[in-house]
Amino acid sequence: MVKTTKRENYAVIGLGQFGGSICQSLVEANQEVMAIDIDEDAVNEFTNIVTRAVIADCQDEDALKDLSIGSFDHVFVAIGSNIQASIMATLLSKELGAKDVICKAENDSHARVLEKIGADQIVQPERDMARRIVFHKLQPNIVNYLILNEKVTLAEVKVDNPDFVGKTLAELALRNKYHVNVIAIVTDGKVNTSPVASDVIDLNDLISVVGNTADVERFNGDANP
Amino acid sequence: MVKTTKRENYAVIGLGQFGGSICQSLVEANQEVMAIDIDEDAVNEFTNIVTRAVIADCQDEDALKDLSIGSFDHVFVAIGSNIQASIMATLLSKELGAKDVICKAENDSHARVLEKIGADQIVQPERDMARRIVFHKLQPNIVNYLILNEKVTLAEVKVDNPDFVGKTLAELALRNKYHVNVIAIVTDGKVNTSPVASDVIDLNDLISVVGNTADVERFNGDANP
Amino acid sequence: MVKTTKRENYAVIGLGQFGGSICQSLVEANQEVMAIDIDEDAVNEFTNIVTRAVIADCQDEDALKDLSIGSFDHVFVAIGSNIQASIMATLLSKELGAKDVICKAENDSHARVLEKIGADQIVQPERDMARRIVFHKLQPNIVNYLILNEKVTLAEVKVDNPDFVGKTLAELALRNKYHVNVIAIVTDGKVNTSPVASDVIDLNDLISVVGNTADVERFNGDANP
Amino acid sequence: MVKTTKRENYAVIGLGQFGGSICQSLVEANQEVMAIDIDEDAVNEFTNIVTRAVIADCQDEDALKDLSIGSFDHVFVAIGSNIQASIMATLLSKELGAKDVICKAENDSHARVLEKIGADQIVQPERDMARRIVFHKLQPNIVNYLILNEKVTLAEVKVDNPDFVGKTLAELALRNKYHVNVIAIVTDGKVNTSPVASDVIDLNDLISVVGNTADVERFNGDANP
Amino acid sequence: MVKTTKRENYAVIGLGQFGGSICQSLVEANQEVMAIDIDEDAVNEFTNIVTRAVIADCQDEDALKDLSIGSFDHVFVAIGSNIQASIMATLLSKELGAKDVICKAENDSHARVLEKIGADQIVQPERDMARRIVFHKLQPNIVNYLILNEKVTLAEVKVDNPDFVGKTLAELALRNKYHVNVIAIVTDGKVNTSPVASDVIDLNDLISVVGNTADVERFNGDANP
Amino acid sequence: MVKTTKRENYAVIGLGQFGGSICQSLVEANQEVMAIDIDEDAVNEFTNIVTRAVIADCQDEDALKDLSIGSFDHVFVAIGSNIQASIMATLLSKELGAKDVICKAENDSHARVLEKIGADQIVQPERDMARRIVFHKLQPNIVNYLILNEKVTLAEVKVDNPDFVGKTLAELALRNKYHVNVIAIVTDGKVNTSPVASDVIDLNDLISVVGNTADVERFNGDANP
Amino acid sequence: MVKTTKRENYAVIGLGQFGGSICQSLVEANQEVMAIDIDEDAVNEFTNIVTRAVIADCQDEDALKDLSIGSFDHVFVAIGSNIQASIMATLLSKELGAKDVICKAENDSHARVLEKIGADQIVQPERDMARRIVFHKLQPNIVNYLILNEKVTLAEVKVDNPDFVGKTLAELALRNKYHVNVIAIVTDGKVNTSPVASDVIDLNDLISVVGNTADVERFNGDANP
Amino acid sequence: MVKTTKRENYAVIGLGQFGGSICQSLVEANQEVMAIDIDEDAVNEFTNIVTRAVIADCQDEDALKDLSIGSFDHVFVAIGSNIQASIMATLLSKELGAKDVICKAENDSHARVLEKIGADQIVQPERDMARRIVFHKLQPNIVNYLILNEKVTLAEVKVDNPDFVGKTLAELALRNKYHVNVIAIVTDGKVNTSPVASDVIDLNDLISVVGNTADVERFNGDANP
Repeated sequence: MVKTTKRENYAVIGLGQFGGSICQSLVEANQEVMAIDIDEDAVNEFTNIVTRAVIADCQDEDALKDLSIGSFDHVFVAIGSNIQASIMATLLSKELGAKDVICKAENDSHARVLEKIGADQIVQPERDMARRIVFHKLQPNIVNYLILNEKVTLAEVKVDNPDFVGKTLAELALRNKYHVNVIAIVTDGKVNTSPVASDVIDLNDLISVVGNTADVERFNGDANP
Repeated sequence: MVKTTKRENYAVIGLGQFGGSICQSLVEANQEVMAIDIDEDAVNEFTNIVTRAVIADCQDEDALKDLSIGSFDHVFVAIGSNIQASIMATLLSKELGAKDVICKAENDSHARVLEKIGADQIVQPERDMARRIVFHKLQPNIVNYLILNEKVTLAEVKVDNPDFVGKTLAELALRNKYHVNVIAIVTDGKVNTSPVASDVIDLNDLISVVGNTADVERFNGDANP
Repeated sequence: MVKTTKRENYAVIGLGQFGGSICQSLVEANQEVMAIDIDEDAVNEFTNIVTRAVIADCQDEDALKDLSIGSFDHVFVAIGSNIQASIMATLLSKELGAKDVICKAENDSHARVLEKIGADQIVQPERDMARRIVFHKLQPNIVNYLILNEKVTLAEVKVDNPDFVGKTLAELALRNKYHVNVIAIVTDGKVNTSPVASDVIDLNDLISVVGNTADVERFNGDANP
Repeated sequence: MVKTTKRENYAVIGLGQFGGSICQSLVEANQEVMAIDIDEDAVNEFTNIVTRAVIADCQDEDALKDLSIGSFDHVFVAIGSNIQASIMATLLSKELGAKDVICKAENDSHARVLEKIGADQIVQPERDMARRIVFHKLQPNIVNYLILNEKVTLAEVKVDNPDFVGKTLAELALRNKYHVNVIAIVTDGKVNTSPVASDVIDLNDLISVVGNTADVERFNGDANP
Repeated sequence: MVKTTKRENYAVIGLGQFGGSICQSLVEANQEVMAIDIDEDAVNEFTNIVTRAVIADCQDEDALKDLSIGSFDHVFVAIGSNIQASIMATLLSKELGAKDVICKAENDSHARVLEKIGADQIVQPERDMARRIVFHKLQPNIVNYLILNEKVTLAEVKVDNPDFVGKTLAELALRNKYHVNVIAIVTDGKVNTSPVASDVIDLNDLISVVGNTADVERFNGDANP
Repeated sequence: MVKTTKRENYAVIGLGQFGGSICQSLVEANQEVMAIDIDEDAVNEFTNIVTRAVIADCQDEDALKDLSIGSFDHVFVAIGSNIQASIMATLLSKELGAKDVICKAENDSHARVLEKIGADQIVQPERDMARRIVFHKLQPNIVNYLILNEKVTLAEVKVDNPDFVGKTLAELALRNKYHVNVIAIVTDGKVNTSPVASDVIDLNDLISVVGNTADVERFNGDANP
Repeated sequence: MVKTTKRENYAVIGLGQFGGSICQSLVEANQEVMAIDIDEDAVNEFTNIVTRAVIADCQDEDALKDLSIGSFDHVFVAIGSNIQASIMATLLSKELGAKDVICKAENDSHARVLEKIGADQIVQPERDMARRIVFHKLQPNIVNYLILNEKVTLAEVKVDNPDFVGKTLAELALRNKYHVNVIAIVTDGKVNTSPVASDVIDLNDLISVVGNTADVERFNGDANP
Repeated sequence: MVKTTKRENYAVIGLGQFGGSICQSLVEANQEVMAIDIDEDAVNEFTNIVTRAVIADCQDEDALKDLSIGSFDHVFVAIGSNIQASIMATLLSKELGAKDVICKAENDSHARVLEKIGADQIVQPERDMARRIVFHKLQPNIVNYLILNEKVTLAEVKVDNPDFVGKTLAELALRNKYHVNVIAIVTDGKVNTSPVASDVIDLNDLISVVGNTADVERFNGDANP
């Protein structure tokens, strides 16, 4: 799904775990990547991976100018724990003309500062990932979901309830009971994207449904009592 | 979507950014949480938030025994940069009987060690979040997606192509051209979960389709040339 | 000159050399001062001097709330070398409603960030004082000066030129020759604020003149050849 | 005002914020500057700016001799927080014959030591700047002032009092009421250096007056009640 | 006894006291040794001693691949106090195909992790040597011993008891009284490996006996009352 | 074999890995142990294990006097990497009358100093254990051995050679061919301590022999070709 | 020789090796001693030894005032390697009225600063002791000496020359040959303070002579060829 | 007095204040000096001063062998605060054959260790100098003294007592009253080494006397009441 023919210029400032993963993913997608860090060892690790790896202090305006940071399509400020450096690199990148500066924030205050000085997008990877994992722990039968708007959800639900097993979609009458549409059924890894009334549900089938969030939650509750 | 009536016991070892976010999310979902860290300051921050906050060295078997770590439904080993501590806490938690130990790994080698010593689930938040962000940069028109199996994808695609605008679904004939099913259309934040042939597409509409990955990609390419 | 009957509330965050001097000067002027620092030793030094001395981490929103930082008439963010702390304290002080936040900046980038996040006044003491001292070294005979606008200057000039000595103001004809007004003459520490044409200039007299900057400079050059 | 045709030799020891600003200001005024620091990085920053940038330990007599420190017109000892180094550099500079040694002091004791070992001028930038800022906070309407001697002050006062507005100088009779002379009036940035009785005062005009300090204060109090 | 004609390839990771001693002993036995450490100084000490001395980070998979760590007959992971490095080096060595990985463990938990990730042999030198020394303190007359199985011991016992002195083996009747066989007698450093009934025991003779452990202990107790 | 009815007083100075293991082994053997370290955490770990655990600086003569170090039967100076502390503790222990001071040395020079200042026994655990392990790697078939004097060895040899298998001791004629005596044979963990000529050797039997070292080596070489 | 009935007040600032020895020697001579250091551990060591032991920062004017430093008969500034602290403590002690301030200097520049700020006596123990030891190495036969003025020396010389042995003072005619007076002769530890012409010199006798330095050197050279 | 024609080889290990002063004094006396330190900066300072300056780790036997430390006439181990290094360097120097090893000790225990491992001479400069200074403070009138044996002292005493002034030696009858011999009298820097009965004593004359210690003390007490 990450195949793309588009090729853009990316600068990644800060080659810690997050910045390093950004580089890796971009390179795998065949993009032009300049990787920047103040630490020589960190830069050396990426010399043979990215288009260009540079040792530079991104709090130094001249250094960023020399790198033409303003000319990149996207600049990731992925600096780890040094909040000051993150702020300065973001400020300077925007002042030098960078169009799309994506910043990693350590906490909410950091995020607010980044927003005020002009960051285009702010991410908090640890917090965001924590939320996802907690969701899955709490709703282990919802394998996946999309929030279409604040009221409507699309969810892929694993069926544990023996009462559902062996029934056809017609018998289950999900549209009647829960006001949800069945979009797809995955049985043993095989996907049926055009489910019909006579399709029979097996134990551990994954049923993708779309509907009002409350309805989807009600369906999930009954499917996994 | 994170509402649940189920109430389980969680232990969270390591109260850095990731572990702290785990605690916060669990508490918001009304779960029992014991928060553990070796650093007193870190623990103090969570005293008024979680069910119980404890200063303990999780490399010390006796300390973990005293906390009955084996009796928790879920144990998060969210220890940050100290790989040794992460490994030891995981080993001891499993040896003491913990059923579900979820560990944060710093890198692939760390992940492999955690797997070998019995971790039930391993996450790499920085890497995983990096991949998501890169995907969105590369495919800015795919707002959201679910991978149903290795061949079938469900994607919510934003329509930029003027050729699509003002056309009905019948005219676009997406099923014919791309072999994809239209599941939902979001127009100005309103969701239509039962799209019919006469529905008209507007600029910036989000069309959710399901189909073979290659077909979905082809549709996305045409919708955003 | 620093006597005032006005009494306002001041908070001073950061008790290094600059913040400490701010406290001292405010206390001497009989103002209400709350002195704040994260370091206990620094705070202890001010316990008996200011109205209230508090140990607090000014990057912590709750701490600043507890101190009602938003209710102070003036908040000095005098944090020394920790640029991150300076930025965070400024952001939070403004968000909590502080009307007048005066910040010390370490360098120009720091100053620009402070400006963007809402600082009301920004000072760079070392740089500003350096400029003053260099001025005095370069123009040792200009004892003092006021810049009235970009063109007009008022300067107190020490007279070294023997040609000026023993002459009356009438004989010197400064208004004719330099288009400057003589405002005051200081002879041996005694000030004459109503100079008349018959007043005689002695060696080392300080003549205060007002006029166009170029004229004042020309006068200064002739008075000290 | 910092233009000068005089060209002298300056040595600046210590390239922190203060010393660096001294260098910058001197270079802008077209002076010969030798910049000295023990830290290579600090020196490198100034290589392209000053006449000569040198790495040297200024506690080492031989090093200072090699630099002919005694032959400079002015030596700034701008060493930051290392009080010992500041004292030693000052001692050695004086012993090697430097005529004008200007030292930055960290505190009063430091200043007294510097004085005893022969420093020609001692400055405390953070303290001095703190005093200026506090003065402006306390007397926000006194835009600027000169102390001519211990009794006589010249002040530029901003007029807030509606009772003053629209009146001529004749009507205000400042000389009668306050025993002060009006030297200049700034209206909207335009300076009138020859005020006459018929000149009318507007709101926010800046009136420069000279007189006894108590009189000037009384005038300021009435002009800004 | 350490002479051997066999020549194998050894890699020793970690050149602290233990790893260094391993190298030394292997070199004395004429083996091929590659010595590896992350610290340059440590490596330099072994350059002239081992077959090859290399600076490398053994937590880095690529570094270990470059060294062909998988092709060695034996790999010692002798990393001292850095438990993480020890675990990672062991994991990678096994994954790269090393047949015999001998690891030093700092403590029991460390040992269990090493076992789970595939270490072939685990040693705890400080603990093992402590046990040996304590044994000798507690049983100072048992100069040496072999445990043949859990019941049978072979021990070399020093004779202190005057009642034993001057007696023949026949008179002592050790086989009758203690059910032990006398294998050898050492008198003044001379060994008699074929003891006969008429041999006479002197004070401080070392008698090697074999028998059930309880019998051997009983004999030792009587020989040294 | 570590059972003993004798009960003596032991002091253990330094509670690192080696000293800690000494304590553990002594306690298991039911001895009186005073455990001493300068680090509070280290001491706390042993409070419930040893007879008495004390925080003390063993470079301080008064501290050692207070502990009556001179009255102990045995004093272990097990101080880890701090060579100075090890030397001082040893010197003071001897000067205060300790009869048996056993010291851990970090290297040969350290050992020589300890010897000169009066240490009664010196051990180098890492080096000694390294030698043992290397021996076993080089002679994997010699399961165990005793050195009776510089010429005579007793070794337990594992038999790999198929030519030996199925033969009686009479047929093998070891005494004739190798001039060694067979003392014991272990078959599948069962020990025969009175081997006779008709005993048959199986594959992997462990034969204990005694004889001249060269003869024993020759036998070992033939038994494991 | 250190017995004295005089009892004075001494303050000793800095309790390192030198300051500590000062305290010890003063206490042995029955003097009143206040021992001061900024380090608690250092002070604790002297609590039971001196009249009063105080933890104080001697760079803090208030602290020194509280200790009434100005009222002591003698103040030793024995601060070790912290030159700044030494200078500040000296300055403040003199400003607070101490009559006799004896300072330890680290080097010549330090000594010159101390002199300028008013130290009454300056010592450089390491340098002074080095000179004494070198003297003894170079002139091993001059056991002791006094410099009476720049020309006249009194020296105690050990006699090695066999030509001197067995001779009377009369025969040696030292006054004639070397123009030196014999003041005392030490033979086997017995002192003869009234030597006469018939006294006979033995090998290794110590002869104390007084005379011009060159003469004394000549005598020493002949006595020890 | 430090002139000598003898030229010997000296090694000085440790170039701190003490070792550096040793080097300086030896070089001034025209001796061959090899200066050794582990720190490059320390060594560089002496490159142009001593015969040879070497960077070496004196705990390393091979390094000391390479320097032929055993062949020097005198070896100073002047290592400052690193007691371990001092002990090791001393041990190795003696083992390598150095005839005269002079060591600086930090404290008494250190001194005892040095003695046991073979140091030829041990000095404690700070302690020894402290004793001298205290003596002079307590007996300010004894300018100088020699201890000839445990009973007899030679002292140079300054005369303060007005009763002594203006008297001849005959009148003072020192031999009668105090049983001391007058050896020399220094008046205004001029030395009289042959005092006679008619010599008159002035105020502040320095009288050198020899006699029993108690007598000398009694004389000193009367001369300075």
